[in-house]
Amino acid sequence: MLDKKFLGTFLANKGLDAMLVSSVHNISYLSSYFGFSPLERDAYLLFTHDNRYIFTNPLYSHEAASQSSDIQIIVHTKNNPFPKNLATILSNKKLENIGFENDNITVVEYLKITSATPAHFIATSLDHLRITKIPSEIQKIKNACEIGDIALTTIKKYIKLGVTEKKLANLLDFTIKKLGADPSFPTIVAFGKNSSIPHHHTDDTSLKTQDIVLIDFGVRHDNYCSDMSRTFFNGKPTKKQKDIYATVLNSQHKAVTYIKDSLAKNSPVDAEKVDRIAREYITQRGYPSIPHSVGHGIGLEVHEAPPISPSSSDNIGEGMVFSIEPGIYLEGKFGVRIEDLYTIQSGKLIQLTQSPVSLQEI
Amino acid sequence: MLDKKFLGTFLANKGLDAMLVSSVHNISYLSSYFGFSPLERDAYLLFTHDNRYIFTNPLYSHEAASQSSDIQIIVHTKNNPFPKNLATILSNKKLENIGFENDNITVVEYLKITSATPAHFIATSLDHLRITKIPSEIQKIKNACEIGDIALTTIKKYIKLGVTEKKLANLLDFTIKKLGADPSFPTIVAFGKNSSIPHHHTDDTSLKTQDIVLIDFGVRHDNYCSDMSRTFFNGKPTKKQKDIYATVLNSQHKAVTYIKDSLAKNSPVDAEKVDRIAREYITQRGYPSIPHSVGHGIGLEVHEAPPISPSSSDNIGEGMVFSIEPGIYLEGKFGVRIEDLYTIQSGKLIQLTQSPVSLQEI
Repeated sequence: MLDKKFLGTFLANKGLDAMLVSSVHNISYLSSYFGFSPLERDAYLLFTHDNRYIFTNPLYSHEAASQSSDIQIIVHTKNNPFPKNLATILSNKKLENIGFENDNITVVEYLKITSATPAHFIATSLDHLRITKIPSEIQKIKNACEIGDIALTTIKKYIKLGVTEKKLANLLDFTIKKLGADPSFPTIVAFGKNSSIPHHHTDDTSLKTQDIVLIDFGVRHDNYCSDMSRTFFNGKPTKKQKDIYATVLNSQHKAVTYIKDSLAKNSPVDAEKVDRIAREYITQRGYPSIPHSVGHGIGLEVHEAPPISPSSSDNIGEGMVFSIEPGIYLEGKFGVRIEDLYTIQSGKLIQLTQSPVSLQEI
Repeated sequence: MLDKKFLGTFLANKGLDAMLVSSVHNISYLSSYFGFSPLERDAYLLFTHDNRYIFTNPLYSHEAASQSSDIQIIVHTKNNPFPKNLATILSNKKLENIGFENDNITVVEYLKITSATPAHFIATSLDHLRITKIPSEIQKIKNACEIGDIALTTIKKYIKLGVTEKKLANLLDFTIKKLGADPSFPTIVAFGKNSSIPHHHTDDTSLKTQDIVLIDFGVRHDNYCSDMSRTFFNGKPTKKQKDIYATVLNSQHKAVTYIKDSLAKNSPVDAEKVDRIAREYITQRGYPSIPHSVGHGIGLEVHEAPPISPSSSDNIGEGMVFSIEPGIYLEGKFGVRIEDLYTIQSGKLIQLTQSPVSLQEI
């Protein structure tokens, strides 16, 4: 995804001779090899001003090599474990100041690595490495969003009295896979009072008359993720439900308007302010504050930079892709969440998810 | 899962006043709350001689509290972040020697935690915490295995000319979910030469005459995992394929026989030796050495202690649940893997996966 110049500039800015990358999504991003498991430590990547190296076990060496032709693959074995192989490279290439992902490397890994080499290791977070997407990445996320829109339309006919949350989620996942993609995270289907739990675990609850139906799901296609939430009404919503739905939708709209206005004025789009505008619109109407962030960046991971939260210090700029997902949750009663993905291209806010958001009775 | 006595003994043996637990599966195990995401740091758990505490964010506090009634929930906020809350508890309860999972805590977390409190932190791996299962845990794994057996039988009819790997995997996943469970990891379906890559990523390859069909999948049910691999022949196998299939099956049988014999003689079952016996049976017949471990423990995670590998230092004992999964892979040609789960109960080896292993032409 990135050219050598970018990596060279990164090292120069940080005063580093090399950067040791350990988080699997950053390794994929920097190597274009997507085969390593996100659940195990299958590999490390080292980049210098001139070279990239992948340290991995024999199980991955052939495949990683075939897909990352200009990267040197160094295989670790029982007698040549990773810290030893890394130390050899650092010594041979006279690399002394090495950045490492301090928010990813564990204490035991750090001790093993640093005890094998006299090199100096410098804490260097890469949590903003992938914040700005190039057009081909945005296109992939857009494709994932389109698959999500089609899948949701396809399964809407199954939302009827008696269907269980698990059955509906299974049909949605099956449809996503039939369309050549995968769910990007475990699909959330929440009926009735389950919708009041933002991270509800889809269960065997069956749909009853007047229940709210909250669906929060994403698609991973060509390694890039989408994320979308919709809330439907099985039957006629009450006056209060209508008001809550309108409030959530307006909250999203307020955040969008702030972004559009800022872009039009060429002024910075403050992620913390996006969160605050959506959040305060809801609390000012007497509803409880959103118990989660208003949004998040998305790409190879469902949650990545920029965070759109009360503690965010990012500005949202050209090429970033992010969600805006306000919600109102009445404990033990019901919840409403509406989530869409957006990007900024050529100075304009573009919405990527396209499923309708007007209040729908099913 | 564990009584207070066990935790007290653990602390006493390690000379600790408390243990800080960060890995999500250990937190679930010690709290019986399974709602935290395995992909984010949603919570920490601290256990002392007298108490357990969960530190989490507001999103999880209610649900965790309702499902772990005797655990104190401490919510972190912007002004009261986790390290501060932890420091308060340690100070109030006069806890000085604190174990932490050095193979899980990141460098940045370690620095934040240790700079907030004068307590002394001691590297303490919990990677063997869950190695021995109680009967109710084994029953859950057995149930997951049964669902896997049923699902595989159900989808066998779809293994026919022209079906794609992805379509078959999707049908298998759909069937697993219809049975009320979930895949425990991304289902591997590998046709023809794809079967020569042990961790092949299921793709759009379609099934051709004389192709090998390798399926490696697992089920998660009631939080516990199964794992099973089967290799079928679409049409008549060649003489060489037959020999390889028989060699892999015999390799598994040799490992099983060593375990049974050791148990009968009341002698220790050496995990490294289980690996070696299966591995050497294959290399002695002129085939390449297995490019992965011969087996692994399984439970809340698909891969957990004990490892059954050349570097394992564990003995396999009563209540452990583990796979034996030898394979032969001919690069660019085809591969055969057979994997079953076993446990030891009342001093006897019991096989948990039950799908037939005799050579099957489809």
